[in-house]
Amino acid sequence: MRYEDYVDLGYKPGKDDLVCEFVLEPAGNSSIERAAGAIAAESSTGTWTEVKTEKKYVRKLAAKVFKIEGKRINVAYPVELFEPGNIPQILSSVAGNIFGMKEIKSLRLVDLTIPEKLLKSFKGPKYGIKGIRKIFRTNRPLLGTIIKPKIGLRTEEHVKVAYEAWVNGIDIVKDDENLSSQNFNKFEKRLEKTFKAKEKAEKETGEKKAYMINVTAETQEMLKRAKAVENVGNEYIMVDIITIGWSALQTLRNQDFNLVIHAHRAGHAALTRNSKHGISMKVIAKLARIVGVDQLHVGTGVGKMFEKKEEVLENCKALKEGLWKFKPVMPVASGGLHPGHIPQLIKVFGNDFIVQAGGGIHSLQTRIGAIAMRQALDAALEGISLQEYSKTHKELKLALNKFGFVSSR
Amino acid sequence: MRYEDYVDLGYKPGKDDLVCEFVLEPAGNSSIERAAGAIAAESSTGTWTEVKTEKKYVRKLAAKVFKIEGKRINVAYPVELFEPGNIPQILSSVAGNIFGMKEIKSLRLVDLTIPEKLLKSFKGPKYGIKGIRKIFRTNRPLLGTIIKPKIGLRTEEHVKVAYEAWVNGIDIVKDDENLSSQNFNKFEKRLEKTFKAKEKAEKETGEKKAYMINVTAETQEMLKRAKAVENVGNEYIMVDIITIGWSALQTLRNQDFNLVIHAHRAGHAALTRNSKHGISMKVIAKLARIVGVDQLHVGTGVGKMFEKKEEVLENCKALKEGLWKFKPVMPVASGGLHPGHIPQLIKVFGNDFIVQAGGGIHSLQTRIGAIAMRQALDAALEGISLQEYSKTHKELKLALNKFGFVSSR
Repeated sequence: MRYEDYVDLGYKPGKDDLVCEFVLEPAGNSSIERAAGAIAAESSTGTWTEVKTEKKYVRKLAAKVFKIEGKRINVAYPVELFEPGNIPQILSSVAGNIFGMKEIKSLRLVDLTIPEKLLKSFKGPKYGIKGIRKIFRTNRPLLGTIIKPKIGLRTEEHVKVAYEAWVNGIDIVKDDENLSSQNFNKFEKRLEKTFKAKEKAEKETGEKKAYMINVTAETQEMLKRAKAVENVGNEYIMVDIITIGWSALQTLRNQDFNLVIHAHRAGHAALTRNSKHGISMKVIAKLARIVGVDQLHVGTGVGKMFEKKEEVLENCKALKEGLWKFKPVMPVASGGLHPGHIPQLIKVFGNDFIVQAGGGIHSLQTRIGAIAMRQALDAALEGISLQEYSKTHKELKLALNKFGFVSSR
Repeated sequence: MRYEDYVDLGYKPGKDDLVCEFVLEPAGNSSIERAAGAIAAESSTGTWTEVKTEKKYVRKLAAKVFKIEGKRINVAYPVELFEPGNIPQILSSVAGNIFGMKEIKSLRLVDLTIPEKLLKSFKGPKYGIKGIRKIFRTNRPLLGTIIKPKIGLRTEEHVKVAYEAWVNGIDIVKDDENLSSQNFNKFEKRLEKTFKAKEKAEKETGEKKAYMINVTAETQEMLKRAKAVENVGNEYIMVDIITIGWSALQTLRNQDFNLVIHAHRAGHAALTRNSKHGISMKVIAKLARIVGVDQLHVGTGVGKMFEKKEEVLENCKALKEGLWKFKPVMPVASGGLHPGHIPQLIKVFGNDFIVQAGGGIHSLQTRIGAIAMRQALDAALEGISLQEYSKTHKELKLALNKFGFVSSR
């Protein structure tokens, strides 16, 4: 088959087709039709030239470009091309060689729709939003903090900061993405001591608290650490899903640990940021949900990261809607946030999300920052403006004086 | 610490520093110095605001921007920031959040120099070029083919194509990146039958042959498949290192199987293609070598992929030079190649490389294409032009008539 043979604009994708939407820029010497055909060929059964070894039954497995609108194309892939339960294989097909082809100048995998037949071969989230709500016994947005400085604190100080945050109104304490088990703060010791501080904070506040400890490592080591977390009785782990990779993430989920999986996406923007090339965050969110994370960073629309509100909403949709029977995943807003952002974030996310502030808490005293976050949340939930509320709540006032109010972009 | 505090142009990196070279484009409202400081902060101990929880001993762990030249910056990281034996943790630091920061418009990790102290915690290649040479008992470039159509052939046809290639002069048969264990060609059956065909071809030709079977899957399944390959007595596996991810690749190497690891890089170009953003292939090549693959696709400089000769040479250098005591890795040229490319490829790669042709062989009869490849190699090694050689070698003539000669870009 030639590249052109992979274009069939009359084709209607069936319920067993995997469908990809790409945006592409053909190379100087190529037309959109030829470039589209090249993409469909290289990501399914074809290559740059017709081969004599082709069999008739192979032609039935060819992907089909069934829609071309400007530089946006849709490609349908017969489900038989994909191995059940194998995310890397799916990506090696539809997000593999094609990014490097000469026929294109740039290519972006914008969306991915996986048929039920294939979805069923994955586990999906064990807890999801409902499971998390059961743990915390509240329906409001959850408040998280990331221990700061993000790396370098010794275990004792790490525990102290965590405890301060918890007892002053924060629900969740999270390690940062680059803290795993360095000499100054080894995993096992951190787990043991921070978990104890968590239990203490729970007793003192009467509230449920959570510790999301980072298990990012080589697969076996990661599983060992996750098992240790489960053994200690902690409910949560966090993991850097992009840098560990899809095989390891599947392996982690397959253990079926009694652990909520918090997915950090460090490194995603190398893939997602350029609107003309790479893979959209929406696709990553869908894949992470299919594999079975329970929480995922999706951007903020405000703060220190680049994404706009529309993208964040798209990511949330990917986490909550459709996708067979898979449980909705809890979106996490994180990156450059502080108490002044909370009303705006609730407008974007609704109630079902986690708002995490690191610098936005610890650049005040941790105690003050934590209280201010909780006050900002209380104010927003009661429908009182932060400015008004801060008149009678001095920690919030301190925070607002430092950071100011924030309106959405 | 503020972003500016992470810039120290008087600093000289020491032997225990990990050093990164980035190219960056500051966002409209930021200077290169501020953006550089932001990168160094976010990838080590800092965040967007100064924090009260900072300790003096943490400041010692801060990364330092020690060089700024135009839009190129160099950053030194104390080795203590990194967990030994944990590639995902290294990447979550130096190739993590920073790609998504608002202070930059684009960012590329161009190079990465890891100190010996940290290198020692990884395994590196078990075989490398020398080990591969021992298996094949020849010092010439090795000839590989990828079974085509790349996916869809039933096991019987797959085996037939492999056998045809082997007995007609090809050394290595490789699965394609998106073939794992689909219903039409299950892994176990393919392994068994293709291995038998390989043994038969070895007997008939008196030459060593290799089968690089694709074990890409979720980690445990991948290990199971690799073990099955070892048990059968096959010397090789291949794996898609980008789509399985770094944790799983480390896990695979850690098993210390008696298996040469052939690394396919499907998906890399989503990260590597944009010269202003993402991660360079050179960095990926270094990391793959550190973890311990034995062979890696590095581009061709010709053929269907985008990379230029200079980039390919840089990748080869990363595979062969420096990096502590790690064995040199065999570069693989693959993608749109045919017999007409061989003299040019030898000029680029020298003798130590594998040239793989899929369409370039099977778009003729497999037998004819395989013979033509071997003839082209013989001609090049004897210093005879392909045109001249083809006068007395009809298969090469057929190939050249089909594909033409190729000069380098």
